[in-house]
This record gives sequence, structure tokens and C-alpha cells, in this order.
Amino acid sequence: QIDSARLWDTIHTTAKFGGTPKGGVRRLTLGPEDKQVRDWFRSACEQAGLEVRIDALGNMFALRKGRDMSKPPIGLGSHLDTQPTGGKFDGILGTLGALEVIRTLNDAGIETELPLCVTNWTNEEGSRYAPAMMGSAAFVGDFTVEDILSRKDAAGISVAEALDSIGYRGDQAVGTQPFSGFIELHIEQGPILEAEGKTIGVVENGQGVLWYDGKITGFESHAGSTPMNLRRDALATLSEIVLAVERVATELGNAVGTVGEAVIAAPSRNVIPGEIAFTIDARSADAAILAQLDARIRAAAAEIAAKRKVEVTLDLVWRKEPTHFDTTLVGAVATAAETLGYANRRITSGAGHDACNLNAKVPTAMIFVPCKDGISHNELEDATQADCAAGANVLLHTVLSLAGV
Amino acid sequence: QIDSARLWDTIHTTAKFGGTPKGGVRRLTLGPEDKQVRDWFRSACEQAGLEVRIDALGNMFALRKGRDMSKPPIGLGSHLDTQPTGGKFDGILGTLGALEVIRTLNDAGIETELPLCVTNWTNEEGSRYAPAMMGSAAFVGDFTVEDILSRKDAAGISVAEALDSIGYRGDQAVGTQPFSGFIELHIEQGPILEAEGKTIGVVENGQGVLWYDGKITGFESHAGSTPMNLRRDALATLSEIVLAVERVATELGNAVGTVGEAVIAAPSRNVIPGEIAFTIDARSADAAILAQLDARIRAAAAEIAAKRKVEVTLDLVWRKEPTHFDTTLVGAVATAAETLGYANRRITSGAGHDACNLNAKVPTAMIFVPCKDGISHNELEDATQADCAAGANVLLHTVLSLAGV
Ligand SMILES: NC(=O)NCCC(=O)O
Ligand SMILES: NC(=O)NCCC(=O)O
Repeated sequence: QIDSARLWDTIHTTAKFGGTPKGGVRRLTLGPEDKQVRDWFRSACEQAGLEVRIDALGNMFALRKGRDMSKPPIGLGSHLDTQPTGGKFDGILGTLGALEVIRTLNDAGIETELPLCVTNWTNEEGSRYAPAMMGSAAFVGDFTVEDILSRKDAAGISVAEALDSIGYRGDQAVGTQPFSGFIELHIEQGPILEAEGKTIGVVENGQGVLWYDGKITGFESHAGSTPMNLRRDALATLSEIVLAVERVATELGNAVGTVGEAVIAAPSRNVIPGEIAFTIDARSADAAILAQLDARIRAAAAEIAAKRKVEVTLDLVWRKEPTHFDTTLVGAVATAAETLGYANRRITSGAGHDACNLNAKVPTAMIFVPCKDGISHNELEDATQADCAAGANVLLHTVLSLAGV
Repeated sequence: QIDSARLWDTIHTTAKFGGTPKGGVRRLTLGPEDKQVRDWFRSACEQAGLEVRIDALGNMFALRKGRDMSKPPIGLGSHLDTQPTGGKFDGILGTLGALEVIRTLNDAGIETELPLCVTNWTNEEGSRYAPAMMGSAAFVGDFTVEDILSRKDAAGISVAEALDSIGYRGDQAVGTQPFSGFIELHIEQGPILEAEGKTIGVVENGQGVLWYDGKITGFESHAGSTPMNLRRDALATLSEIVLAVERVATELGNAVGTVGEAVIAAPSRNVIPGEIAFTIDARSADAAILAQLDARIRAAAAEIAAKRKVEVTLDLVWRKEPTHFDTTLVGAVATAAETLGYANRRITSGAGHDACNLNAKVPTAMIFVPCKDGISHNELEDATQADCAAGANVLLHTVLSLAGV
């Protein structure tokens, strides 16, 4: 059994790095608060006897020796960055839960057959830089390191510059850390476990994702003197696109669609918006539906553009097919949950996770615990101490079953 | 006859204060470029023998003596501030056209019976501070000077601070400059004169205006894991409001409606927008339709808010009833246009103007000239030298008929 109070205390210790007045966390990847939490994490790992390595994208690997050092370690962990107005559990529970597993093994003097490796992946959230799960995506080869290093945030700062500015561009080559398997603990970020009174979600699969950068070019003109029928209004165009994305996702079912960002160029109360940049996030756990989402969103945008005589461009900046986790590892998670006596169910992940990327290269599975009202990507995100501890216990027992005692 | 080449040259001289690469002007009220053009204008007026006074809101009055100094002057002029991506004629033609009238009278050695007063009104555009036509609105008593001085721009800088920073908080009390009548020359900012091949618009009336500050409070949550039917999406709500404003204005006819600004708080690609601030600008030349616009926009917003279970507040920050200009002065403009042989028609102003405010206190009229494709509040705004000169000639002859030679 892990130490529930110690885990809870650790979560609240790190929540002060970027803590907000509303009780959330603002810790954008590779910013000053991310440096603070990384420094804290590195030192906590070293105090727990782990050897910390950092790769060229800032992904952190903290190794615990096993009896058989010829085999790659079992990986466990998640991420420590947050959304602009994020919570204190998203990702954090997974990385600190992994640290808690190590501390528990240390306290009990347990040596595992295989080594273990606690991870903190860079830019899981995808707010400052696209794509989300950036560090793990480059790790499995979905993007080249050069490509990722050159990506820029809204202020024009590249990933390379941001890594250098916090001193986390490490010397390990990206993708070289081997794993025998990988387990990620995370809050569900959805309402199902809580609604059904289950403590543990045994994650079987994850949604595919489409991310678009959109741009609308209409024509700026005077809000008072331009007749309604002569307008080429970029915001009215965006409005139809937003509602089309919502409608397409709803109609297809087993899908979601969101416009999360929209910025009017040179806005003024009495000027018809002429240019807008926006983003679309669309997802489905079903590959065929994901393809339909893509086709129908593009068709709707083209139709709206033609009708309104404006230009709309949609640039697909990220596409990820649905994830199907390793059945053996999913079974190991289910067995651990059953053995420990936690009410559990199989579940699909609505959010993307580093585990979804790892799964392409390494047998992978995930453990979910409930979060209050299913709320995440919100400062009000919450989870109970008991559920966090239950998740960390399932992580401990799954890892022990995979690494061997 | 005014000097067409000199007027054209003067317009292009001032266009460099805040000139943009696309040939437009960015000269937000009370900013550094506004100081530049004001300094230039003051010195040009003084060189033309005018006495320049500045009131406590930065409104500029340049006086030319008449034979009968017991009578208030005839006012003529407009404004020199622009939209963030504005053109080089909007307002500017009216103030520089007035200066050209003075220069022409000086050259011809003509003394008028009544004195004349060339004006530059502060913050006509309303982009940096609401309301539009701010200086002239306070001048006629629609707002108190204290209220206006305390208004803040998006960066939190008050009108008082901005005036002090450019040295244009004058010592004349606001509203004390008397006028016997007021004439404003302006580009049409709409497509009618050009389409009908008319050179001069004799402006009879102007639209009433409603300006709202809106706020939507939905709920931020995860774009991947929040089911479509559990969302309280602030941007989808705004989208319905934008389309409702468009629909209501179109259905009512003789009305326009625009959402010009919309800012998502803490935007992120994979976060459902939780909070948005936006503006609405709605107008009609018909007082009954203006009242219906107000009622229907409010009703639509309330209905959308209830349906989507989000909070929507609409704060009416400015309401101005439709303007009906002084029939005698409108007649004087028409006579001048006819006498000079310019093709002309009666017209309604779609945009708001300082003249619409002045009209409440002083007999007032306006002169319009065509602008290319009706485009304004756009860097591509354009007008011909011949049309600008025609407008200034009608201004000259109208002013002479009112001031007496
Ligand atoms: N788990 C999580 O919130 N990931 C962020 C990436 C995404 O799913 O949008
Ligand atoms: N003439 C003009 O563009 N005025 C700005 C105020 C408005 O009508 O919105």
C-alpha cells in the first residue's frame, strides 16, 4: 500500500508552482513555473535514489535499478505541465503517483526484477505549442526533433529557445530510452466513473484527434454604413463554422468537436471583422467516424465560405488515429484493481495522453480515477485523496506484476 | 473655388502620421500619432491666421475673425483620429477641407460677416474609448466631462491620463464654444453615391445607434473528454448571438447589426471556452426600428442563454436616437451643390458623426462625397481628388451663404 497522506501532500506541494487564486494551476510548458516544478521533481527523484536523465526535448527519465539490468525498465508516469487555467491533478497525479510508488518500494526495501523508470513528458497539454503530447510524440517518432524544436508559441518563442531558457535541453537523444512496458495513472477528466460509483477505470482505448489551424479572410468595413447584404463578415462566418463543428460532432455520435481559440485581427466595435484565426479540435474513438468528422468539417467550412464569399483555410496540424492499448497490460491493470478490491470498469479515454503515443512503440496501458463532476482543464478540477491513493495502489501492483519482485 | 491640389497634398501630408504599409492610417485617439497630427494641425491653423483653443477634452477650435464679432461663428470640421486599420479620408477630409476653405478665403482676401471656427473633435472613432463621437457628445452635454475623463482603454489608461500624456488637456471649459451653425464634410462610407454617379450627398438624417458590452459565462472544460450534451460553451453561445444579431437586423430592414469585438478569456485549443467578452453595434435611421432592434437583440440573447444554460449579460453602454438635420442648413448645402453644378441627392448617414451630436444644440448639416466601393474603416478606403475638391467647394459655398460675405 502506498502512503496516501504523503502522495496527497506531494500533490499540494507542487500545486504552488503556478498556483492560481481560484485553486488551480497555470504552469505552461517550458515556462518559469515549469522550471520550478521540474527542479523540485528532479531533486525529489534524486533523494529517492533515482538517476535522472533528460533528453533533447526536456523529457525527464528517473531510473531505479532492477535485479536484471539487461532488460529495459517498466515506465510509469505522466506530465507536470498544465493548461492556462488548469487543475492540480491533470498529469500531476500520474507523475507524482509514480514517485510515490518508488518511495513505497524504497520504504519496504523491495527490489524489482526489471528496473523502473519514472517519467515527466514535455508539453502534454498542447496549449503553448501544438501538438499536445509533444514530447512523447517525438519520442515515438511521430515528429522529428528538428521540427518540434522549431515550433513557436504565440509570442514567437521556439521550443528550442524555451528549453534553453529554463535549462532543460538535455543531452540524451530523443527516443533512445528503452521500456519493457509503460503504465500511466491519470484522472478520468470525464463524468463516467463518478456517475457509476467506480473507483478505477481500466482504460482500453483512446480517441483519435484532429487539430486544425483555421483562418478566415472576409473584408473589414464600417459597421454603421455597410448594408447587411454587402458584408463579408469574418466573425459571422466563424459563428457558422463553430455551430457546424458542434452539429457534425453531435450528429455523428461517439465524437466531440470544439473551437477553442478565435482571435479577430484589429478588432473595433464599429468595424465588421475582416480576419480571424481560429482552431478546431475534433475527436472520436472510432477511426471511421474520425474520417467522417474530417470530411464533414471541411465540407461545412467550404460551403459556408462559398455562401458568404469569404476565404476559409483549414490546415490539419495534427492527426492521431484512435489508440487501442495492449491487451496484456490492460489485463494486468484489471487484475490489480480486482485484487485490491476496487470497484472498476473498462473505459475509453476522451483526452489524449502520453500513453497513447507510447503505445505505438511499447506495450502500454492506463489507470483512471474519478474527478469531481468530470471537470478538467478548469481551475475547479478536483479529486479525492482516497481515489488518488487507490489509483497509485493499482499503479504499484500493476508495476510489481510487470517488473517482478 | 478651393485649391484642389493643395487639399490633396495636405491629406497626403497628414496620412504619414500613423501611416500603414497597406496605405491606410492607424492613429488611435490621444496616442502618439494623434499628438503628431494635432501638433501639425495647430501649427497649420496658426499659419493661416487662426487662433487655436483647446478644451478640457482635447477638442480643438481654430477661430477666424468675422466683421460681426458679437455673433457666434459658423463651425466647420470633423476629426483627425482613425480606426486601428483605418483610411486617410474618414474625418480627415472634413477637418482638412475646412482648413482649405480658410486658406482659400485668406488667398482671396474674403472677410465674412460671422466669424468661422474650424474644429477637430476628440475620439470620433470610438475604438480606443467608448462612445464614438466622444468629444462632441460631451460638448453637447450627453455625458459629463468627469465621466468621460475616467473612461479607460483596454490597457487601463484613462482619457485624462491619455490627454495629459500628449499635452492636449486644454483649459477651455467643455461646451462653452458657441456656434451659429455647423457644417461637416465627410466621405459617405457607403456605396450609394458611387453607384448612382452622384458627386455630392446632401445629408438629411443619421442612424440611431445602440452599443452593448456583452459577457458570456459558460464553463471551461476539456475539449476531448466533455460529451457534447454536457457542455456550456461560451463560444458556441456567442456564435448563436452573432447570427441572431445579423438575422434580426436583416429581418427588420433599415437596420444593421454587428459584433465587432470578441475575446475568449484564457483560450486554449483543447479547452471549451468558458468566458467571452464581446460588443454589439446595432443601428437604424428609424426610431421605432431602433427600439425593436434593442428588444429583439435582448430577447434573442436571453433565449440563447437559457437554452445553453450559460449566463449572458448585455450592458447598453451607448444609445443615440436617430438624427434629423436642420432643414434650413440642409437646404443651404443643396443650394450650394446645385449652384456649383454637382450631381447630388439627399442621403441618410449610416455612420455616426460629430455633426449628429452638434445637431442637438446648433443648427447642423453635412456634406458627403463618394468613396471607392463604399469602403471605410479599412486601410483600402479611397476617394478621388476631384470628389474631395467638390466636397470642399460645397463646404466653402455653404459656409459663405451662412456666414455672409
Ligand atoms: N490529458 C489531457 O488533458 N491531455 C491534453 C491533450 C488533449 O487531450 O487535448
Ligand atoms: N464616421 C465614422 O466612421 N464614425 C465612427 C463612429 C461610428 O459611426 O461608428
